[in-house]
Amino acid sequence: MLSKNEHKLITSLRQKKYRIQHQLFVAEGIKVVNEFLNSNLLLEKLFCVEDYYQSISKYKPKIISEKELLKLSNLSTPNKVIGIFKIPKVSITKPTGLIVALDVVNDPGNLGTIIRLCDWFGVTQLVCSKDTVDCYNSKVVQATMGSLARIPIVYTDLKEYLKNSNLPIYGAVMDGKNAHSSTLKKEAILVMGNESNGISSEIEKLISHKITIPKFSKTNTPESLNVATATAILLNEFKR
Amino acid sequence: MLSKNEHKLITSLRQKKYRIQHQLFVAEGIKVVNEFLNSNLLLEKLFCVEDYYQSISKYKPKIISEKELLKLSNLSTPNKVIGIFKIPKVSITKPTGLIVALDVVNDPGNLGTIIRLCDWFGVTQLVCSKDTVDCYNSKVVQATMGSLARIPIVYTDLKEYLKNSNLPIYGAVMDGKNAHSSTLKKEAILVMGNESNGISSEIEKLISHKITIPKFSKTNTPESLNVATATAILLNEFKR
Repeated sequence: MLSKNEHKLITSLRQKKYRIQHQLFVAEGIKVVNEFLNSNLLLEKLFCVEDYYQSISKYKPKIISEKELLKLSNLSTPNKVIGIFKIPKVSITKPTGLIVALDVVNDPGNLGTIIRLCDWFGVTQLVCSKDTVDCYNSKVVQATMGSLARIPIVYTDLKEYLKNSNLPIYGAVMDGKNAHSSTLKKEAILVMGNESNGISSEIEKLISHKITIPKFSKTNTPESLNVATATAILLNEFKR
Repeated sequence: MLSKNEHKLITSLRQKKYRIQHQLFVAEGIKVVNEFLNSNLLLEKLFCVEDYYQSISKYKPKIISEKELLKLSNLSTPNKVIGIFKIPKVSITKPTGLIVALDVVNDPGNLGTIIRLCDWFGVTQLVCSKDTVDCYNSKVVQATMGSLARIPIVYTDLKEYLKNSNLPIYGAVMDGKNAHSSTLKKEAILVMGNESNGISSEIEKLISHKITIPKFSKTNTPESLNVATATAILLNEFKR
């Protein structure tokens, strides 16, 4: 059975301020929790329903009822297990390799997809502006499918970060050079902007290479691509 | 004020069987409805709140209250206007150009993103297996941002369709030829599979060119890319 304090802790971690205060976050479901148990993340506490106990007994989970799981869960169909993990301490490293930088990405689904893409394409660090959605938000955690444990993610003053870097800075904009005919460096920072407003003017000034994914539509529509699909296409271009 | 029948019709159209029966679907919000009003789609009925009437008065919308809008809407923040449009009659055409074929894509968000990508990359037709999620589902309609009106979409027996085509058939699989080093024909069919199971074995037999997006991860993870991001990357490869 769940104690009052445990219940309070888990539900409080739905809010960013408590995640920051406790330096903890919650993951749910067999697949995601397993990926995290097998990663470098540190486990704080584990809860599971009785029929799943054997599968993860070495982590000494606390058994909870289906009803308790349902109350704790953020998922529409809760899935056996909930884990509380420590937020890893990631420091900003000297920029090397391919780095993705996000300027105020708001949608948790988009951030989750981008983290998974960074994992696929071997991105060395994901640098987020301070007002980008929190990567330990439960929707992000579930969308990353474990990639969250493998990509170093930092939140920082993006302007300062870019100013102090000496890698070429590429930015996805609407009127840049055709990405298909641009030379894309192996070591670079790729900046992607907000869902509605793109890259802010302050950050755009720091971009050394503005690039655009060419459009092949017969009409002049659609206006833009979703930020996660645009990131997918550009990371693939960098790695070709 | 909304009549009982109008209310009943709009809420019934949340279900696929009624959309098929009436050959109608619902779109919401200023941006999406405007895109559809300016497209080839035929308007059946339009409803809006009073302060938006002037902007679309030429379409003779019926004025409804904010409260009525809230009741009808599928959105968390309803946005001024709801339109009922006729489902266009699209017939299967002889395959030419670049065609995307979906084998049981289930997630409305993924289908919406893929429709938008088809629009961006000038895909000539989107061919869906009969058990792919309905493109007139409200979540798909809202996710396509108007692209739904510009891409001819058909639902058909995918096996028969592929058998009768004489274009090369590419399929995204886990163990295919590296997409970066494959010659991708200008005229082709690209088959994308289900979110969990990929392309079904029955359809895989009909694929002439199995292709894979190479992975640059240092570990052997993640297992796969989301179907919408994979479609983005491959359509970009076809159009390079």
